[in-house]
Amino acid sequence: MNNEMLIRITRYYRALTKLRTIGLEKVFAHNLADAAGVSAAIVRKDFSQLGIYGQKRGGYDIVELANSLGKILGKGAPESVIVIGCGRIGMALMHYTGFENDGIKIVAGFDNNPQLVDKSIGVPVYTPSKIGEVCKDLDVHVAIITVPESAAQDTYQHLLDCNIKGILNFSPVTLKAMPTKDGSMPVVHNINIGLELEQIFYEIKFPKEQPTA
Amino acid sequence: MNNEMLIRITRYYRALTKLRTIGLEKVFAHNLADAAGVSAAIVRKDFSQLGIYGQKRGGYDIVELANSLGKILGKGAPESVIVIGCGRIGMALMHYTGFENDGIKIVAGFDNNPQLVDKSIGVPVYTPSKIGEVCKDLDVHVAIITVPESAAQDTYQHLLDCNIKGILNFSPVTLKAMPTKDGSMPVVHNINIGLELEQIFYEIKFPKEQPTA
Repeated sequence: MNNEMLIRITRYYRALTKLRTIGLEKVFAHNLADAAGVSAAIVRKDFSQLGIYGQKRGGYDIVELANSLGKILGKGAPESVIVIGCGRIGMALMHYTGFENDGIKIVAGFDNNPQLVDKSIGVPVYTPSKIGEVCKDLDVHVAIITVPESAAQDTYQHLLDCNIKGILNFSPVTLKAMPTKDGSMPVVHNINIGLELEQIFYEIKFPKEQPTA
Repeated sequence: MNNEMLIRITRYYRALTKLRTIGLEKVFAHNLADAAGVSAAIVRKDFSQLGIYGQKRGGYDIVELANSLGKILGKGAPESVIVIGCGRIGMALMHYTGFENDGIKIVAGFDNNPQLVDKSIGVPVYTPSKIGEVCKDLDVHVAIITVPESAAQDTYQHLLDCNIKGILNFSPVTLKAMPTKDGSMPVVHNINIGLELEQIFYEIKFPKEQPTA
């Protein structure tokens, strides 16, 4: 496989992940072509070269296709994640077993009062000062932030200093990607539950089909 | 107004609320840009599209601007929400006090075993068979789903039957908007934490700017 084809496949794979998130089940070559900035003919040629064929009625099953491309891109072994802030949300995530289906494992928690954290959870909990050491030992590069609003920005900076490359932030502060010490850009996703609810209320009041404002 | 603009406006609005609480009177486009994670040019473009203009010497009056945006967002009395599924995630949301800042109040929880749910929470918990009655009494139209994967689809259908118009779904099942009895379309937002983490890992492996071979 040449380099350009690999780039296209990563783009297809990324588009598929997004399409899954919004609940689609089937995708057509021209959808992926748009996402990758190539023609539908190239998408079909790439897939046929990889031995991937569409359904009789046209289109590809998204989950199947994502799995096939995922294998090509070397997705496989479970990925390790840490949780910063062992309050109710953090603990709920640490207890949740469904991440295993996504190939994700929470390997450690961090809290200012690790001695107060429920030990039954089966995941070790340390003080935040140990983040760098633990992440180095366990080769972890992704963290979930579930600290209170007031601690979010400091936690973020500390995580970047500890060589964390990816962050899923549940605090209501919107964290922005900024270059780390080594010049690389972290990947930051913000999940703001209050904001999601506000948007839902807004969309109910002003349905998209009939904008009132 | 498209969805991305709406997200930005809710972020501007939230930033303004915070700035008001710390006593500021005037705000500049770049302040709001920082808060919303966009450029100042986009803030100015959004406002000009909404017919909102700054002061002669630059900047916007915070109270005036918050009122204008608040009207667009349909703000006023706090909005009521119910939580279906009082497991760890559901209980974490019911304990969380930060939603009040967003004008959102969780008024009831529902669980198959309401007698097992922690009573200290201050929010009444009922069996799911009471959803219709409680929502009618309290005039609730938005629900958060935090039930296990296996119960998500049935819960969703039940909520639509109970005249719920907006749903924030935390179960890993992607729920799709489908017409309700009265023909209207519900607003459904899915938050799939596992998928978010997968995407973060993927984006770290294949950065957007420098696709790796």
